[in-house]
Amino acid sequence: MSNLDMIHAAARRLDGHVRRTPLLSSSFLDEIAGRRVLVKPECLQHTGSFKFRGGWSALSALDPDVRARGVIAFSSGNHAQGIALAAQRHDTTAVIIMPSDAPKMKIDNTRALGAEVVLYDRATEDRDVIGDRLSAERNLTLIKPYDEPLVIAGQGTTGLEIAEQAAVEGVTSGDVLVPCGGGGLTSGISLALEGHAPEMQVRPVEPEDFDDVARSLKSGKIERNDRQSGSLCDAIITPACGDLTFPIIKRNCGTGIVVTEEEALRAVALAFARLKIVVEPGGAVALAAALFHGDQINGDAVIAVASGGNIDADVFRMALERYAE
Amino acid sequence: MSNLDMIHAAARRLDGHVRRTPLLSSSFLDEIAGRRVLVKPECLQHTGSFKFRGGWSALSALDPDVRARGVIAFSSGNHAQGIALAAQRHDTTAVIIMPSDAPKMKIDNTRALGAEVVLYDRATEDRDVIGDRLSAERNLTLIKPYDEPLVIAGQGTTGLEIAEQAAVEGVTSGDVLVPCGGGGLTSGISLALEGHAPEMQVRPVEPEDFDDVARSLKSGKIERNDRQSGSLCDAIITPACGDLTFPIIKRNCGTGIVVTEEEALRAVALAFARLKIVVEPGGAVALAAALFHGDQINGDAVIAVASGGNIDADVFRMALERYAE
Repeated sequence: MSNLDMIHAAARRLDGHVRRTPLLSSSFLDEIAGRRVLVKPECLQHTGSFKFRGGWSALSALDPDVRARGVIAFSSGNHAQGIALAAQRHDTTAVIIMPSDAPKMKIDNTRALGAEVVLYDRATEDRDVIGDRLSAERNLTLIKPYDEPLVIAGQGTTGLEIAEQAAVEGVTSGDVLVPCGGGGLTSGISLALEGHAPEMQVRPVEPEDFDDVARSLKSGKIERNDRQSGSLCDAIITPACGDLTFPIIKRNCGTGIVVTEEEALRAVALAFARLKIVVEPGGAVALAAALFHGDQINGDAVIAVASGGNIDADVFRMALERYAE
Repeated sequence: MSNLDMIHAAARRLDGHVRRTPLLSSSFLDEIAGRRVLVKPECLQHTGSFKFRGGWSALSALDPDVRARGVIAFSSGNHAQGIALAAQRHDTTAVIIMPSDAPKMKIDNTRALGAEVVLYDRATEDRDVIGDRLSAERNLTLIKPYDEPLVIAGQGTTGLEIAEQAAVEGVTSGDVLVPCGGGGLTSGISLALEGHAPEMQVRPVEPEDFDDVARSLKSGKIERNDRQSGSLCDAIITPACGDLTFPIIKRNCGTGIVVTEEEALRAVALAFARLKIVVEPGGAVALAAALFHGDQINGDAVIAVASGGNIDADVFRMALERYAE
C-alpha cells in the first residue's frame, strides 16, 4: 500500500471516532502576519492534541487478539493521553511509562482515561528496560509515538482535512506550518498534501535550542538536540527526528523555521484573544512562525497547525499576563 | 414564510460566510455532569460569538440600495462586533452606539472591524435620541440585537447544526441549554429544533440576579431585571426578553435554569482545561447548568451552547486562579 493509501485507510478507520477540527481565522491575525492565516486547531481534538489520531489509527489496525492483550507506550504527555483514550474506547488496556517529573496534569489525565501509568525516574532508571520487561511479561504491543507507519498515517489525516478545508477557503498553495518534535505529524501531513494539495509545502517549526529538524534539513542527516528538557514547549521536545519520519520530511518539506519561547507564548495569548482556543506553547510554535517570521514564509495565505492545548493553568496565566493586549 | 423556512433561508445566506462550529465533548465533563455533555462552541464563530450569524442574516437580506446606505446598532459588545464584521464584508458602513463604559476590548475590536463607534454616557445621555438623530441624518437601517425576525432566523441556524451534529452522535432527545439575554439565540434555536429535533427541548439559562426569563416563564408575562450592569456575565444582561422572542420561548422552551456567577467562572475554567476553548462568563452559563444543576435537567445527554468567548484576559486569569485544578 502506498503512503497515501495508508493515510486514506487510516481516515476510514478514524471516521466517526476522531473529531474533524475546523479551520479558524481572524482578520486581526491576518493583519499581524501581513497575509491570510488559517489555523487548524488540533487542540480541539479528543485528549487535546492530534496524538489521538495516531493512537486510534494504530489501535484500530491491530489484530483483535493482539489488541485485547493490551498496548504499551512511552510518553511524557500527549501521546500518553491519545493512546489511553484510544485503548479505553477499544476496550483494552494501555500501560503508559511516564517520567515521574512529567506535568502532573498529564499524568492525572492519562490515569483518568483508564491507563495504567508506570512512573520512572529519568535520572536513575532506564525506561526501555522497564518497557521491555512489562511487554514481555504481559505480551503488550508497543505503540511508538512517531516512528511507526500506522501512527504517521493517522497524523496524516490532519493533512487530508487541511487540503479539503483550505480549498473551500480558496487556498490551494503556500506554506503549511507544523509544530515538529519527532516528525510524525509533519511527515504525515506532508504525505497527505503531496497527494491532495501538491502546491502546498510543509515547513517544520521548532523552538530555539531544540531545532534539530531545521539543522537536520540543512545537513541532510539526523541531528540531535543537546538538551531534552527545560522548555515550555515540552510537547514537541524529542531527542531527534525519527528514522522513518526524517526521510519523508527531507523529501517533502521546505526549510525549518525556528521561533523563540517568548514568541510561542505571544502566539498562545493571541490564539486566546483572537481565535478563542487554548494552545500549549509547543503547539503554538507554528502560529508564532506565521505571525512573527513572515519573511521566511511563501504564499498569500499561510496555514498553521495548532497541534495541542494541554497547557497548565499557571503557564497560560503567565502567557496572558505577559502578552494579552 | 414560516419561522422554520426563515431559518432555512438564513442558513442558505450564511453558507460559506459563517463558520460551522463543531460539537465538542470530554469524558471528564461527562463525569462531573453525570451524563453525556455535548458543547456547541459559538465562541469559535467569527467575532467570537453567535452574534455574527444574526448580523449576517440581517445584512444579507437587506435590499442592496438600502444596505449601501449603512446600518446602525446599539450594543455594548458582541452584537456590535457581529454587525461590524457583517457590514465590513458587505462593503457597507456600520455605526455602532456603545456605552462609554463598555469593555475597552469590545470597543477597540468593533472599531478595528471598520465600524464607526459612537460612545455615549449611560448616566446623562439617551442612546435612542442619538440613534434616531444619526439614522435620520444618514438614512441608516437599524439592526436590533434580538427582537428582529431576520436576526432570530440567523441565530436559529445554530439550532439546525445542533440537530444535525447531535444526531451523528446518536443524540436526538433531551435538554438543549442556551445562555439567554434578549432571547434571540434561545428562540431561534427552539424554532429550529421544533422542526428538526422535536424531542429536544431548549432551556434558557441565566445568571443569578438577572433571571428575568426564568421569572417570565413562571409568571407567563415579560418580567424585567432590576439591574442592567454589575455582572461578569455582561454578554447576556438585557433589561428584559423581547416582545418577539418571548412568545416563542414561552411556547417552545422548558423552565429556565439559574446559575451563580461563581458557577459560570468554574465552567470557564473547565472549558479551558477540558475543551480547550475560551468562553466568557455569560457564554458559560449553559455549561455551568449542565455541570452543576443536573438535577434540573432531563435526558441521558445534554447539549450546552457556549455562546461567546469575548472575555478580558484579567477575568480569564481570575477564573483560572480560582478554579483551575
